[in-house]
Amino acid sequence: MKIAVDAMGGDHAPQVIVKGIEAARDAHPDLDFILFGDPAKVKPLLQNAERITIEATSEEIEMGEEPVRAIRKKKDSSLVRAAQAVKEGTADAFFSAGNTGAILAAGLFIVGRIKGIDRPGLTSVLPVALPNPAGATRFVYLDSGANAESKEKNLLQFAQLGRFYASQVLGVKNPRVALLNNGGEEDKGDSFHKAVHQELKAAGDLNFIGNIEASELLHGKADVVVSDGWTANAALKATEGTAKVMLKLIKNGIMEGGLRAKLGYLFLKPVFKKIAKLMTPANYGGAVLLGLKAPVVKAHGAADEKAVVATIDQIHQMLTSGVVQQTGAYFQPEESKQTVDNSAEN
Amino acid sequence: MKIAVDAMGGDHAPQVIVKGIEAARDAHPDLDFILFGDPAKVKPLLQNAERITIEATSEEIEMGEEPVRAIRKKKDSSLVRAAQAVKEGTADAFFSAGNTGAILAAGLFIVGRIKGIDRPGLTSVLPVALPNPAGATRFVYLDSGANAESKEKNLLQFAQLGRFYASQVLGVKNPRVALLNNGGEEDKGDSFHKAVHQELKAAGDLNFIGNIEASELLHGKADVVVSDGWTANAALKATEGTAKVMLKLIKNGIMEGGLRAKLGYLFLKPVFKKIAKLMTPANYGGAVLLGLKAPVVKAHGAADEKAVVATIDQIHQMLTSGVVQQTGAYFQPEESKQTVDNSAEN
Repeated sequence: MKIAVDAMGGDHAPQVIVKGIEAARDAHPDLDFILFGDPAKVKPLLQNAERITIEATSEEIEMGEEPVRAIRKKKDSSLVRAAQAVKEGTADAFFSAGNTGAILAAGLFIVGRIKGIDRPGLTSVLPVALPNPAGATRFVYLDSGANAESKEKNLLQFAQLGRFYASQVLGVKNPRVALLNNGGEEDKGDSFHKAVHQELKAAGDLNFIGNIEASELLHGKADVVVSDGWTANAALKATEGTAKVMLKLIKNGIMEGGLRAKLGYLFLKPVFKKIAKLMTPANYGGAVLLGLKAPVVKAHGAADEKAVVATIDQIHQMLTSGVVQQTGAYFQPEESKQTVDNSAEN
Repeated sequence: MKIAVDAMGGDHAPQVIVKGIEAARDAHPDLDFILFGDPAKVKPLLQNAERITIEATSEEIEMGEEPVRAIRKKKDSSLVRAAQAVKEGTADAFFSAGNTGAILAAGLFIVGRIKGIDRPGLTSVLPVALPNPAGATRFVYLDSGANAESKEKNLLQFAQLGRFYASQVLGVKNPRVALLNNGGEEDKGDSFHKAVHQELKAAGDLNFIGNIEASELLHGKADVVVSDGWTANAALKATEGTAKVMLKLIKNGIMEGGLRAKLGYLFLKPVFKKIAKLMTPANYGGAVLLGLKAPVVKAHGAADEKAVVATIDQIHQMLTSGVVQQTGAYFQPEESKQTVDNSAEN
């Protein structure tokens, strides 16, 4: 299995990317890598070229660039070339820590959607923070921002995409699917979310457990939380931002609290470390654009070596589980190819 | 100044309500109270009837009841009668810790909107958690859930309502107004939020500083954060929920961490107490339904005596500042009464 890597994307590229890929290569004997990037910058960083080849590219897409324009203009960028390799079948999956919008655009327009999927959904795996009856330790969350405006059928597809990801990649049996809404009861929400609730309920193959509120995201009530991209993005940012603020508040309190507080910190260090680790999104891998013909995964721009390794672990799991093939078979069973093709045009 | 109190609303009513009102009465010599409720329950709790009268009511609106139906059917409920007293001018402000939807409905249909306001906005004062250049310690946040579906003009009005509240009630000079959006740049957001951004920017009397993301809510970047009710509700719930989860994680870590962790807790107790206090919403008063002809304020259902006192402090500040009158004058200046009246009908 071969992974196409955008070696130039990310705040600490190509150093951190190359280091992370070498570590991931050592961990996974069944993986090969193609590093797309400037050989003058990438080659000197590479300590051992085993199962790693370099493909020379002459351009880079910067963090601030307008995504669709960038992927159309910069045909020889590391990002576009890596996506192109997946499209052409030279590689089986795409990895980048670069411009999010450009990765989404390259996934959508170059790698391409599974037939029957109207829009892919940006998917994160998030931690469950509290003990819960189901023993859940993480959950699948989508669409966390690929689409600012979603339709009912998109959310129904996100639910199916999330279900396949939870069962195949995370190994959850019969994943519990919930809808992010502004209240727990069936009749809560605006007209859009009320309608989505009814459609999810009517889908016979989903283990739909009802609504979940943004305050309960980390409580382990569901294995898949599905939402329109707008709401999910706001709730995710608020969750991540508040977790950071709380850790900062503790740090500030300790800094200002004199010797007594510093002693307390020493005693509680293992507790704080555990919490910080639990609440660090990068430890759960990158964001996957689900619904495409191959794994397209984005690590955070600030990703360090460990985050690169975690993201490659995730891609490895996606490839060996066959989640993309199984999702494809669900959305486009052989006997109804024509029907699904037509409905995708609507 | 007289406050109409729904003595029967809230998880711990009427005990906590009566206690809180007595404490608030002692703190504010210029306030009088009317307690609407069952005299058989309320009277025995009242230690000192100075500046407190009881008005007998025969019904209660429960937490789960359908709001609009409840206020139409239960005319002699403590909640409806308290709102009615404000409408009739017997009282100057309304307080309840009861059914949120019923309070919103009573505010809207009984107390009534300021002319020129299409929809009132549910407004919370939230803490700023981190040190910031402006020295802000709290900010005004609306609409946190009165309207699941908002129009552009509603958000423009929310911005004005929030501006008056920040300047008159919190004493912020020239409040910085921001729009909650999914990115910092002007061109970010769905079509609705892009349009709202432009309208806020064009409003000459607003100190509009641009977009703010849900991850930055507690950073003190703005004095007023305006949003549609749907997004604001999701971001607020995620923020409050995550703060609670983080405190719970620390508590669990200490409980499981043995003697060492418990010692650490003893040393860090003042830090944790400060953080818990900072992040407790009730310490910032109740939720105000802004845009009405009088202060209509809702304390949390689980409000304790301190939260009741904090909410009455807030109502006192609203009454003495004349924020309602000033907001009214802005939306309906004498010379253009007719015009504003007409536009309100659209």
